[in-house]
Amino acid sequence: MAKQTNEVKQKNTNAKNKPGKSKKGVLNKKQTHKKSNTNQQTKSKKVTKEKTPKAPDVAVRIAFLGGLNEVGKNMTLYECGEDMILVDCGLAFPEPDMLGVDIVIPDFTYVEQNVNKIKGIFITHGHEDHIGGLAYLLQRVNIPVYGTKLTIGLIENKLSEHKILDIAKLNVIKPKDRIKLGSFEVEAIHVNHSIPDALALAISTPAGLILQTGDFKIDTTPIDGDVIDLARIAKLGEKGVLCLLADSTNAQRPGYTASERTVGESFARLFQKADGKRLIVATFASNIHRVQQIIDVAKSVGRKVALSGRSLENVVETASKLGYLNVPEGILVSIDSVSRYPHDKLVIITTGSQGEPMSALYRMAFSEHRRVEIGTGDYVIISATPIPGNEKTVGKVVDELLKRGAEVVYEKMYDVHVSGHACQEELRLIMSLAKPKFVIPVHGEQKHLRSHAQLAESMGIAPGNIYIADNGKQVEITKRKMSVVEDVPAGKVFVDGYGVGDVGSAVIRERKRLAEDGLIIINAVIERDTGMLVSGPDIVSRGFVYVRDSEQLIAEAKLVAQIVIDECIHEGIIEWGTIRNRIRDDISRLLYDRTKRNPMVIPIINSI
Amino acid sequence: MAKQTNEVKQKNTNAKNKPGKSKKGVLNKKQTHKKSNTNQQTKSKKVTKEKTPKAPDVAVRIAFLGGLNEVGKNMTLYECGEDMILVDCGLAFPEPDMLGVDIVIPDFTYVEQNVNKIKGIFITHGHEDHIGGLAYLLQRVNIPVYGTKLTIGLIENKLSEHKILDIAKLNVIKPKDRIKLGSFEVEAIHVNHSIPDALALAISTPAGLILQTGDFKIDTTPIDGDVIDLARIAKLGEKGVLCLLADSTNAQRPGYTASERTVGESFARLFQKADGKRLIVATFASNIHRVQQIIDVAKSVGRKVALSGRSLENVVETASKLGYLNVPEGILVSIDSVSRYPHDKLVIITTGSQGEPMSALYRMAFSEHRRVEIGTGDYVIISATPIPGNEKTVGKVVDELLKRGAEVVYEKMYDVHVSGHACQEELRLIMSLAKPKFVIPVHGEQKHLRSHAQLAESMGIAPGNIYIADNGKQVEITKRKMSVVEDVPAGKVFVDGYGVGDVGSAVIRERKRLAEDGLIIINAVIERDTGMLVSGPDIVSRGFVYVRDSEQLIAEAKLVAQIVIDECIHEGIIEWGTIRNRIRDDISRLLYDRTKRNPMVIPIINSI
Repeated sequence: MAKQTNEVKQKNTNAKNKPGKSKKGVLNKKQTHKKSNTNQQTKSKKVTKEKTPKAPDVAVRIAFLGGLNEVGKNMTLYECGEDMILVDCGLAFPEPDMLGVDIVIPDFTYVEQNVNKIKGIFITHGHEDHIGGLAYLLQRVNIPVYGTKLTIGLIENKLSEHKILDIAKLNVIKPKDRIKLGSFEVEAIHVNHSIPDALALAISTPAGLILQTGDFKIDTTPIDGDVIDLARIAKLGEKGVLCLLADSTNAQRPGYTASERTVGESFARLFQKADGKRLIVATFASNIHRVQQIIDVAKSVGRKVALSGRSLENVVETASKLGYLNVPEGILVSIDSVSRYPHDKLVIITTGSQGEPMSALYRMAFSEHRRVEIGTGDYVIISATPIPGNEKTVGKVVDELLKRGAEVVYEKMYDVHVSGHACQEELRLIMSLAKPKFVIPVHGEQKHLRSHAQLAESMGIAPGNIYIADNGKQVEITKRKMSVVEDVPAGKVFVDGYGVGDVGSAVIRERKRLAEDGLIIINAVIERDTGMLVSGPDIVSRGFVYVRDSEQLIAEAKLVAQIVIDECIHEGIIEWGTIRNRIRDDISRLLYDRTKRNPMVIPIINSI
Repeated sequence: MAKQTNEVKQKNTNAKNKPGKSKKGVLNKKQTHKKSNTNQQTKSKKVTKEKTPKAPDVAVRIAFLGGLNEVGKNMTLYECGEDMILVDCGLAFPEPDMLGVDIVIPDFTYVEQNVNKIKGIFITHGHEDHIGGLAYLLQRVNIPVYGTKLTIGLIENKLSEHKILDIAKLNVIKPKDRIKLGSFEVEAIHVNHSIPDALALAISTPAGLILQTGDFKIDTTPIDGDVIDLARIAKLGEKGVLCLLADSTNAQRPGYTASERTVGESFARLFQKADGKRLIVATFASNIHRVQQIIDVAKSVGRKVALSGRSLENVVETASKLGYLNVPEGILVSIDSVSRYPHDKLVIITTGSQGEPMSALYRMAFSEHRRVEIGTGDYVIISATPIPGNEKTVGKVVDELLKRGAEVVYEKMYDVHVSGHACQEELRLIMSLAKPKFVIPVHGEQKHLRSHAQLAESMGIAPGNIYIADNGKQVEITKRKMSVVEDVPAGKVFVDGYGVGDVGSAVIRERKRLAEDGLIIINAVIERDTGMLVSGPDIVSRGFVYVRDSEQLIAEAKLVAQIVIDECIHEGIIEWGTIRNRIRDDISRLLYDRTKRNPMVIPIINSI
């Protein structure tokens, strides 16, 4: 049962007890799994009761800095002796309760604490949840970055926006390259995903080989013809894979993920159906193969293609320049010129497949787009499924498009989208080829990680050799065993505007209070010596009530403030803090009694 | 094609042209559908080219006050001559951008304008989206209410909370009852739904019979043995149904909705699987048949049942008292005593199936429940599917339960939930029995209404006889035609605490701004005559930055305020409004330049 893997007990190992340098025997005894579940004793005996070896086993540590129990901000740290390398540095999009937060990035404390050990960072592919934190990381520790051509191209765009492109140490690698950094040798392995040029990483360490898949799927008919390098993974499996860290995103889905090519076939059919209408296809900007297929089908039916959405334009430009996108001469037209083309001669590719407010598709639906007005002559294809949490916003856009009379293909109406992540049979296949001793599911929420662990178990991997980790957890792996060692600093850092980390839980709490019920300011000027009220009390309200309809309530609040001040003066209270607190308490009570709301009450009492 | 039904053009009919009293011929000519789509001409000829009759046809009007292009706050108004009746008065839950709003209710303006015409309100069933606005309505217009015993029982609970139970005119009706109110005669027809005692309404009017289904499904093996009264609907169909208003919730789903009984069979299997563990089943409080099945299976395996969640306790009490729930003697135990029962002798039924923060299941998951701590000995069944928009919150609770080691049945893992709404085949069946001349899909978002309209068309109903309405729209129906007439006031009224309608778009906009970036107060005291600064400028910030980490920025803001005030004094500006505006502008600019954030800037300048 996979749940038992979670019962691996954490050990407080001696901090001096560095990985790869443990004293003979100590590491093995101290860090051996403690089985709290008795029915696991038999199975686990094999692992835990092995004879203590003469020489200490070399160990590698893996610290999880992001991407576990969440979707996004993937970041993993490998440590062996005096060397460290990182894999990925992504962002996460804020949860609804993270008010005003633009993006969430990993906490880099542990990296900064170990800046002298870190040899470099490998990026598996160019999606935001794998590269979106990099610009922030490099501003703190300017370490060398390794990635494929497209990945580095997309990173360059980001670093350029952050004005740190000049100083960054970017290294383009390609599949089959091996990069030696300290005691690590990292081999790049081609995988399929919903962005081209994605990698798995085979990380050779003195303790053994670790295979981190990155985000992947197995596409036997990919658009670029380049199938995931299963042969290499099989070869590594034969040589021996110590530990597998694999993509859990689709671990709950049975079967196989369909090939990207099936989407192109659907487009071909739908473009026929939409004959006479203007086509608008919304998709993820970074899904370059999807964009390629739309362009190819558009060409085959004699339609021009216009792009709408800044991220899409940027990605198309970078991908074309680097040779990942083949745009036939003359097919692209400017979005500003679409009115010049008849509806049946045009395809508009657009962002906004997640219903994001202010995205191109959203603006089209709500009549806010400069060039595109939706009507009965439009055929809209949303070539994406809603990411969990976006169902409502996507639904809102679909409803609006329908109301305007457009035909809309959405949800699972036709096969206009495939996932970029491996389903259960693909995950099994990778495990059967890699034959890992230890398995650590990564990239996903608890339910995904658990399903992945169950799959691993179904493949015969001992429950004690599967670990469901969490951000901030760290494991130490030798060729014999995997142990949970001390936690490392990890967490969420909020980016709001230019501020990185300056919006914390206290500020978010205040925003929540303000969002819920607004605020009331009570303002008065009091003469310091006499305690006489010179001016006020006046009331300013924001986000609380519509003041013109609530004059009586405001008058009552003024009266309460007046009474508190008078009482304080009468009682000889000259502590401004006390007066302020009493005003706050009495006004809060009044407002709650009258409205059942709890606005923030801010007394601004000046003494002169 | 259903989309063409939306092209029915709205007519600005003479407001004096009252339904049922139209002048000969005028109504027919003016209000005939205008077909903008040529390929519909042939079909629609039949309707539009009929000979103008000698006597004017009597007309009934239907005004849509809620429930269209939304899920929730269902409310429909029927008007004939000097008589009006209402059907349902629900609430909707606020969208995420309606900050601080507790619930949304319909705008009652049109009802209040016609208070002398309104004869009563019929409630189809006891769900919040059909009864949740009633207490607010009755506070304004105390009209007679008609509903079945359980529905009235649940309404009583609500009116009691609002302290208006004494004055309410509640009337218990039962299926087959006919209530004559003015020119209307309303017949109650039993239907199946996810709450017992639900009704469809057959509304006889001088213009013809209108069938409004309410929320319904066809359950041939319901828990109470009482199948929807299809025979009566068939009989009405034979006599002639002028117009059908039917539930569109599941109009996109093919096939049939499974019987509630299948859930009980799943429970029986899962309760066996969970042997030795404590069972926790989360479901909707109002799904009394679901609760009955849990109790029945618990009894059969010798488990006691405890309830957690106030709404569940209330509903169970009401339903037991009224005879809708059969709770065997001695099976219910208090939630406070659960620690006294071994895990394998207990089932806890709980609220929170939608992951609602502060619900019982949420509190259990996050260790905030007084009596129930989740662990490896727990088997949790979430007997519901997430309502669109709740996917994330449900996922969060599931993840937390899994992390604590519980086994969790969620999403579509087993058949632990069935819908309460009719799928496509059921909708077709109702249309085939009722044989309506006109069809108006109700209860649903645009995509649901459209799918329902398409279904109606596939049943041979002329596109011109199907109308996709919207809140605030009104149709006039005679035995020959359906015309869109003038709009009526309709909309969303926000309830926040005790306030009904006092939070409008201006207040919500302020809350959004505050939620996004917080606020900054600049406070100073200036001597009126000399313009000298007596105190300040001081800065108070909330929800903007963590002040202790932003001392420099705060100091800069003070300086800017000081400079503006000095300049104003120097320039002889004594308009406080001008000074305030300049402070606001300059500080806003500074803060945006430094932080890329836009906090609300509130200058509080006292003059003495």
